[in-house]
Amino acid sequence: MNVVMNIPVSGQGLHDISHRVRKVVDDVGISEGLVTLFIRHTSASLLIQENAAPQARRDLEAWMNRLVPENDPLYTHDDEGPDDMPAHIKSALTAVSLGIPVMAGRLALGTWQGIFLWEHRHHRSEREVIVSVWGDRG
Amino acid sequence: MNVVMNIPVSGQGLHDISHRVRKVVDDVGISEGLVTLFIRHTSASLLIQENAAPQARRDLEAWMNRLVPENDPLYTHDDEGPDDMPAHIKSALTAVSLGIPVMAGRLALGTWQGIFLWEHRHHRSEREVIVSVWGDRG
Amino acid sequence: MNVVMNIPVSGQGLHDISHRVRKVVDDVGISEGLVTLFIRHTSASLLIQENAAPQARRDLEAWMNRLVPENDPLYTHDDEGPDDMPAHIKSALTAVSLGIPVMAGRLALGTWQGIFLWEHRHHRSEREVIVSVWGDRG
Repeated sequence: MNVVMNIPVSGQGLHDISHRVRKVVDDVGISEGLVTLFIRHTSASLLIQENAAPQARRDLEAWMNRLVPENDPLYTHDDEGPDDMPAHIKSALTAVSLGIPVMAGRLALGTWQGIFLWEHRHHRSEREVIVSVWGDRG
Repeated sequence: MNVVMNIPVSGQGLHDISHRVRKVVDDVGISEGLVTLFIRHTSASLLIQENAAPQARRDLEAWMNRLVPENDPLYTHDDEGPDDMPAHIKSALTAVSLGIPVMAGRLALGTWQGIFLWEHRHHRSEREVIVSVWGDRG
Repeated sequence: MNVVMNIPVSGQGLHDISHRVRKVVDDVGISEGLVTLFIRHTSASLLIQENAAPQARRDLEAWMNRLVPENDPLYTHDDEGPDDMPAHIKSALTAVSLGIPVMAGRLALGTWQGIFLWEHRHHRSEREVIVSVWGDRG
């Protein structure tokens, strides 16, 4: 079963969507299976990352912004502004889809894992993520 | 159901395979499900990226070629030439598999998303991608 | 069906887990399907890479260590030592999940593909990977 989630985003950075995904899994009600997340965009991506220390996420964002800076003279594509091309590159370096098992009715994330939508643009307000849930109701 | 696609490639760069994947999904005939793509190589990869602006793809390739240049003195492995090791690294930084939901009989790609095979070698002529289609015929 | 594998690791680097995954697929006994691997950590990741030349893997590790060095002044998070933040970044740049088709009862890896757990920390001794196997027993 596929469920489309509309995720509000407020500017560039990591947005925790773990609770949203958990809610879909609970609603679908499988006990053993696999959840696949898919983001329908090329300038935002999906990430599983440390859910506890906010500094770790801040460092990750800062590191990525340094690796893929705005206004790099290499870019010829900037139709939508200086954050346009960096967003496509960051998206290519991270994940458009993620597979996460469901065991005993719950997402089998590790203790320190959270699911994040990584917004790479400055001024977006919403993104679409599809949650594809398959398995046994048991 | 798993279907093996042989994809002709003409040199390094992004090759749009969206139509090929769509054809497999149509042929299998599911209405609701999940497609997983898998590339059977370690020097080419899979990417979902902007399908409209060719400049965006050109910039992405140029950026990646600058990040992972040929003839880096760090490389000790060059059995197959100067594009050998960069191809493995680029492959590690991008995707070997992608999961894409199928809704109402169609791949649920976003409006601007295309599926690409990213060839990292200069002189290959063909690659194998498996399309794994599972779901309900409904 | 989901099977949890405990993988012993001995320091930073690539650990071949292909045989472990193959064993799970054999034990579950499907003939046609899809295997999804998921690693339950944010400082180790999954990789499909060249299984023959050890030099290729060594170069890949050396390249990644140069791209994401320890003791970068950008880091503010180092609770667990100098390899803490680099491990999170390397994990974000590589895969937390992988989908691999099963055809005729076997993992449909390419000839030169091996499945690796990429340990990014220096002093871990074990990691958890879930193997999610779905398909037809045929």
